[in-house]
Amino acid sequence: MPDPTTKDDIQRQSPPIRALAVDIDGTLSDKDRVLCAPALRALRLLRRREVPVILATGNTHCFTRATSVLLGTPQTFISENGGVISFSEYKIETVADLSLCEQAFSRLSAEFPLRKYSSTRYRFTDIALERNFDVAAASRRLEEMGLAVDLIDTTYAVHIKDRRVDKGTGLLHIADYLDLKPSQFAAIGDSNSDLPMFRLAGFRASVANAGPELKAVSDYVAGAEYGEGFAEIIEYMLREKML
Amino acid sequence: MPDPTTKDDIQRQSPPIRALAVDIDGTLSDKDRVLCAPALRALRLLRRREVPVILATGNTHCFTRATSVLLGTPQTFISENGGVISFSEYKIETVADLSLCEQAFSRLSAEFPLRKYSSTRYRFTDIALERNFDVAAASRRLEEMGLAVDLIDTTYAVHIKDRRVDKGTGLLHIADYLDLKPSQFAAIGDSNSDLPMFRLAGFRASVANAGPELKAVSDYVAGAEYGEGFAEIIEYMLREKML
Repeated sequence: MPDPTTKDDIQRQSPPIRALAVDIDGTLSDKDRVLCAPALRALRLLRRREVPVILATGNTHCFTRATSVLLGTPQTFISENGGVISFSEYKIETVADLSLCEQAFSRLSAEFPLRKYSSTRYRFTDIALERNFDVAAASRRLEEMGLAVDLIDTTYAVHIKDRRVDKGTGLLHIADYLDLKPSQFAAIGDSNSDLPMFRLAGFRASVANAGPELKAVSDYVAGAEYGEGFAEIIEYMLREKML
Repeated sequence: MPDPTTKDDIQRQSPPIRALAVDIDGTLSDKDRVLCAPALRALRLLRRREVPVILATGNTHCFTRATSVLLGTPQTFISENGGVISFSEYKIETVADLSLCEQAFSRLSAEFPLRKYSSTRYRFTDIALERNFDVAAASRRLEEMGLAVDLIDTTYAVHIKDRRVDKGTGLLHIADYLDLKPSQFAAIGDSNSDLPMFRLAGFRASVANAGPELKAVSDYVAGAEYGEGFAEIIEYMLREKML
């Protein structure tokens, strides 16, 4: 008599998704950047199942490290939009060029009322600015100047960052370190800075507050916003036996 | 006929406690430093009532700043056990002497296997060490050396810190800035590093996982541990109309 659990067991041994790459602001937090209780509960569930949750964010290394401690996620994460990769507590790599961003800041400041966030003191590779200026116009000026930096508007801040890095290049570093393929990751986010990792991931999901561009490339769009949307996505993935 | 709500109204206009000073590790978080959902919910309740929650911790300025963002508490907080005071996003003061701690570290290292935490890169005034050595013996050696630093064991790390600062001196700075008396604060914590602020506060409460010394000077000891204990304390204070 065949064992009826065999098929399930095989499925459990090799789920298609082995790790998650997850944005913080607007995905685990609300619009004011405050963590949502449903997101905490979903993360606890993932921790019990030993699914690594890789934070992928524009925040500083220090902010992201603190977040990973407070959320119980690994010290393996992508910070500064791919500019600083933390592989472990003691292995951190800086893979982007701050001086290029400083140059862009200095030249744009002559034309736009740029204001750095105070957290800039903790930034190694990019600059975070308040959203008080015309980002599209400033981007056009950077093109004219021929500087290889991008302006990224996360809706929480505008970042000046080295064009050679993004959350996608960050994901490649992390996948290599964890000995996984990028397609074994699910990517979950809310803003256009998540697009590069969405292009590489095997499953893409966005929360209801995400922009139309990200939603358009998502395999699943949550009905709920913010941390509640994240919890809904995790429930969906578990129901569909993706994890 | 007298208005039966008058007394309540007066009480509501001038509650005895106007702000909270709250430890993070073991008070808002569990034993692994992960935030507890009940603590998040209690903090949301306090935010709605506009009760300022001042984080008071041995963590770095950067870690505490991140925690305050993620919890939605003010950018007014005590970090590095009183060594670094944040009054606002742009007003931060360093009030302790790191060089004294460096000297103690260097001299103790000759006799004890001291290991700095990697977060030390973000510390301005104290040094955080792993708990892999005999703290009592090391404290005695510091006394013999005549160095004006203390070793503080928070059960999460051992800190070498300038003796002139603690969470109590931190509370005095914050109270002055907020134009409140220290006795208008409630202090909530779990470890002996909370004792100096307990001595000044008008109401003291500890979570069930607190040590016996802190419990002995508490007006209320929660039956629940960690973040659940914090939520219980807030419920108690609201029930007793202290807030």
